[in-house]
Amino acid sequence: MSFPPIRPELAGIEPYGAPQLPADVAPVQLNVNENPYGPSDECVADIAASAAEAARTLNRYPDREFVALRTALASYLSRDVPGEITPDRVWAANGSNEVMLQLLQAFGGPGRTALSFAPTYSMYPEYARDTMTTWVAGRREDDFSLDLDRARAMVEEVRPDVVLLPSPNNPTGTALPPEAVTVLCEAVGGSAGSGGGIVVVDEAYGEFRRSGVPSALELLPAHRNLVVTRTMSKAFAAAGLRLGYLAADPAICDAIRVVRLPYHLSAVTQATALAALRHAPELLGNVDQLRAQRDKTVAWLRDQGLEVAESDANFCLFGTFGDRHAVWQGLLDRGVLIRETGPDGWLRVSIGTPTEMAAFEDALVAVMKEL
Amino acid sequence: MSFPPIRPELAGIEPYGAPQLPADVAPVQLNVNENPYGPSDECVADIAASAAEAARTLNRYPDREFVALRTALASYLSRDVPGEITPDRVWAANGSNEVMLQLLQAFGGPGRTALSFAPTYSMYPEYARDTMTTWVAGRREDDFSLDLDRARAMVEEVRPDVVLLPSPNNPTGTALPPEAVTVLCEAVGGSAGSGGGIVVVDEAYGEFRRSGVPSALELLPAHRNLVVTRTMSKAFAAAGLRLGYLAADPAICDAIRVVRLPYHLSAVTQATALAALRHAPELLGNVDQLRAQRDKTVAWLRDQGLEVAESDANFCLFGTFGDRHAVWQGLLDRGVLIRETGPDGWLRVSIGTPTEMAAFEDALVAVMKEL
Repeated sequence: MSFPPIRPELAGIEPYGAPQLPADVAPVQLNVNENPYGPSDECVADIAASAAEAARTLNRYPDREFVALRTALASYLSRDVPGEITPDRVWAANGSNEVMLQLLQAFGGPGRTALSFAPTYSMYPEYARDTMTTWVAGRREDDFSLDLDRARAMVEEVRPDVVLLPSPNNPTGTALPPEAVTVLCEAVGGSAGSGGGIVVVDEAYGEFRRSGVPSALELLPAHRNLVVTRTMSKAFAAAGLRLGYLAADPAICDAIRVVRLPYHLSAVTQATALAALRHAPELLGNVDQLRAQRDKTVAWLRDQGLEVAESDANFCLFGTFGDRHAVWQGLLDRGVLIRETGPDGWLRVSIGTPTEMAAFEDALVAVMKEL
Repeated sequence: MSFPPIRPELAGIEPYGAPQLPADVAPVQLNVNENPYGPSDECVADIAASAAEAARTLNRYPDREFVALRTALASYLSRDVPGEITPDRVWAANGSNEVMLQLLQAFGGPGRTALSFAPTYSMYPEYARDTMTTWVAGRREDDFSLDLDRARAMVEEVRPDVVLLPSPNNPTGTALPPEAVTVLCEAVGGSAGSGGGIVVVDEAYGEFRRSGVPSALELLPAHRNLVVTRTMSKAFAAAGLRLGYLAADPAICDAIRVVRLPYHLSAVTQATALAALRHAPELLGNVDQLRAQRDKTVAWLRDQGLEVAESDANFCLFGTFGDRHAVWQGLLDRGVLIRETGPDGWLRVSIGTPTEMAAFEDALVAVMKEL
C-alpha cells in the first residue's frame, strides 16, 4: 500500500515552478518575466492605507462579487478599446492561472478538449490535467508563428471546446495577428462537440506588444465566444499581488461564477488591487522603456550570431545551444538567473533594467567564450 | 446551439453563497458565522505596515513555498498539542475551500469517492463536483451525532478515498468524539480502492469547542492518513483575509504541491496573515465570550420551547418551524439576517455581540407571536 494515496497519474510529478533562488546566489533575476521596477513610495503608502481600511473589518467576509474591483478593471480596460467594457464583462481571480483553471472547469472538463499550439506556456497542460480536460497541442511554424490554414484544419479535426492562444506567446514572444483570432473564433464557434467552443486569448504580456499590433480586446464585440485574459503581474508590475482578470461576454462571466470558490478574492487583495489600479499610469510607466530595452536586447543577441525569436513581450527566446543547460548554469555561476525553457536548445531571458541587461550581456559573452 | 457552452451538468446552477445584504437592510448580520469583533487599531496598523513592506517588492512574485507563513502557522498550532508541529506538516491556501479543493484534486477525482455524513457543510458536494469526485453522503442520527458502528459499516461498503468530517459540524454545531476520528482513520486506511484513503477533519470552528472536547490535532501522530484543517475566518476573526490551512503528514503536504497553482498565496496575503498571527492572543481573545454567549443562546432558545442542536461552534441550529422561510423573512424584516440552511424546518444563527443577540431574541419573539 503506497502512501500517500495520491492519484496515480500525479505520483512522482514535480510541482510546477521555476527555481526561486535568493538574491545572494542570483543578484540578477531575469527568469520569471517580472517587471524590474517596483512601486513608488506614494503607491506603497496608498496600498498600506487601503490594506488598513480593509483590515478594519477583517472579521467580515469580502464582497463575493468584488463589484468595486470589477468596475475599476472594466474602466481600465475601456481605455484600450473604442467602446466601453462594462463590469459585467469582467472577471478576476488570484492570478491568471486561477482564471484559466476556472475557465477549464466551466468550459472544459472530462470528455472535453483544450487545444493550443506548441511551443507555448507550460502551465496550460497542467490546467488541463487538473480539470480532466483532454489536452491537444498543435505545432507552430519554425518561426513560432501560426499558419492559419493549418490551425483551422486542426480545429476542424480536433473540435476543441477551449482554444488557448497566448498573444504574445510564452516562451517565444510571438504575437498573433487579429485575423488569427477571427479565424479561430469562427472555426471553434461552429465546431465543438458541444455545439461551439470558446477561444481564450491570453494577453498576459499584451501591454508589451510592438506598436501596430492590436489587442484582441478590440474583437470582443465581434465574437461572443472570445475571452481575453490579462494580468497585473507583468506590465503592471504587481506579480506579488496575484491578480489575473478577463473580459468576455457577460454570460461567460456568469458561467464562471458557478465554479468559483465563494469569496475567492480576499478583502485585502481587492483593496490592494484597487489601490494599484489608481496608480496605473505610474506602474505601467516603464513599459515603453522595457519595450525599447527588449528591442535592443534582441538586436544585441543577433549581433552575437544567435537566433532570436521576434518578441512582443518583456522577454526574448534565444539560441540555439548544443548544451543549453551549460549556458544557463554558466550564467547562474556569474549571478544571472534566466530560464531554461522552450524548445530544445533555446533559453529565455526576461527584460530587466539597463544595468541588469548589461550584466546579462557580459555574463553571456563570458559563457560563450568557454563553449 | 446554446451559449455559453458551459458543461451541461453546471448549466442553470445558482452560484453558491448566502445572500450578502448591506448594513442598512440588515444591520444585524448573523448569517455566515463571522466573528463579530474586529481587530484593534494596533493590529490594523501592523497589517498596514506589513502590507506596505510586501508592496515595496510588489513587482516580484511571492515566495511560492510561503516558508515564513508555514513556520508561523506551525508554531501557532503547536500550542494546542503535546508535541511540535513542524512547518513541513502545514499547508495553506486562499480559504479552507481552496484547501479542500486541492485535497480532492490530489486524493479524489474521477473514479474516486468522497464520503461525508449529512446534514453537513453544503459546499462539500460542490468541491466533489468541481473535482469530478463521486459524492456519497451517509446520515447522521436524529441528534446529528455519528453512530460509529453505522459509520464504519458505511466506510466498508463505500470504500471512500476521502472522508470529510467537520468537527464541529456545520450547520449543526456537533463535535466528534476522538474515538470517531480513530475508528474512521482505521477503517478508511485499509478500505479504499486505491489501498487507503484519507480522513479530513474540518476544524473550521474548532476553537469554539466546549471544554473537554479535544482537537483532532492530538491524533495526528497516531494516523498518518489524518488531515486536520483550520481557518483564520472564524475564531481568528479574519474572514476577509481568506486563509485556510491544514496539518498532516509531510507526504500529504508534498502531494498537494503537485496540484496547487504556483504562487497561489499572494505576497500581501502572506504578509497580512503573518501580521494577524502576531496578534493571535488579541484576535482570539473573544472566543471565550462567544462560547459563553453561545451557551446562553442555546439555553434561551430552549426556554422558548424550541429544539436546539448541541453546539460546539459559534452558531446554533434551532427549530423546527413549519415554514422556516417565513421566520427567516420575519427576522430580516426586523433587520436581523440569519441563515436558512440545514434540514427542513431548521434555521441557523451565528453568535454575535450581546447587543446583536438581544436584537435577534427580540425579533424572534415578535416573529413567533405572528406564526
